[in-house]
Amino acid sequence: MARRHVEQLYTGKHLGLNSINGWEFATRVRGSGVVIVVAVTKQDELILTEQFRPPINKRVVDWAAGLSGDITGEEEESLLTAAQRELLEETGYVSDDWEYCFTGPSSAGMTTEMLSFFVARKCYKKGKGGGDASEDIEVHLVPKSKARQWLKRKSTKRRCVDPKVYAGLGLLSLSTDDE
Amino acid sequence: MARRHVEQLYTGKHLGLNSINGWEFATRVRGSGVVIVVAVTKQDELILTEQFRPPINKRVVDWAAGLSGDITGEEEESLLTAAQRELLEETGYVSDDWEYCFTGPSSAGMTTEMLSFFVARKCYKKGKGGGDASEDIEVHLVPKSKARQWLKRKSTKRRCVDPKVYAGLGLLSLSTDDE
Repeated sequence: MARRHVEQLYTGKHLGLNSINGWEFATRVRGSGVVIVVAVTKQDELILTEQFRPPINKRVVDWAAGLSGDITGEEEESLLTAAQRELLEETGYVSDDWEYCFTGPSSAGMTTEMLSFFVARKCYKKGKGGGDASEDIEVHLVPKSKARQWLKRKSTKRRCVDPKVYAGLGLLSLSTDDE
Repeated sequence: MARRHVEQLYTGKHLGLNSINGWEFATRVRGSGVVIVVAVTKQDELILTEQFRPPINKRVVDWAAGLSGDITGEEEESLLTAAQRELLEETGYVSDDWEYCFTGPSSAGMTTEMLSFFVARKCYKKGKGGGDASEDIEVHLVPKSKARQWLKRKSTKRRCVDPKVYAGLGLLSLSTDDE
């Protein structure tokens, strides 16, 4: 394999643009870990978030999610801690039943960003939710059996569904398959 | 809502870095549409691809996928055409049973890139696959009932699974749910 020649093309406040052997890609200036929380209540309702996203100029339906801290040597632990914090901050829910699933790229051709998926089962309400001071997050409880139609209705001109929602549904469906 | 003030920070050969009211994000210079093909054979095998991705320095397991043309007024048609081309080019398979599912962001906080998901059922072999001249794509046929364990084994130091694979499994699981 050719030696990786990394060139920094531009460094912004939050994102940078680099290239490896001429292949351009974006990076986050602070860390590149994002946690995604596939959260389900005791009553089998999906706990989803909805918020406005400036880059695509739409409201986006997603799971609770956020950036993780990047403490060397504590990557695994800090991911779970970040996942628990984001679920509570954004939705007001907590869980005593966490499972780490996998880590994969959000867009492997254009960014180094990696997403770590957790499933949080039997969630129950503990806080207010809605996000931190800079966020304005709407929370939806959607019965899993109604998810397909509910998500279809959410795809409109001003609103869309993040593919990660379907990835979470895939993880939930597999957990009951070929054990 | 505040007026959208877009600033171009840097324009590369393939990617650009912009900001909206101070919120930085990456864009593709040519088009921002990506098609994802959730492809299944008549024998209920998932048709997956595996290729090296420079930004994350790993091999990535994914569906057949690629950039779509950006012909104004023919967006819908060109997405399907692109999906059919990518499936044949990358895997050698074709299908007479296509369904458009939805379009959503790959990473709504950091890029304008949008992914359009298609399901291609009852796929059958017609070509060689492997990608175009610049690509070196390995094709995997994975029985759906074995997917969970197979994907788990693919998460290693040098290899990972794209969350879009699980999104496709979610779409397939929903299509048999609450009709």
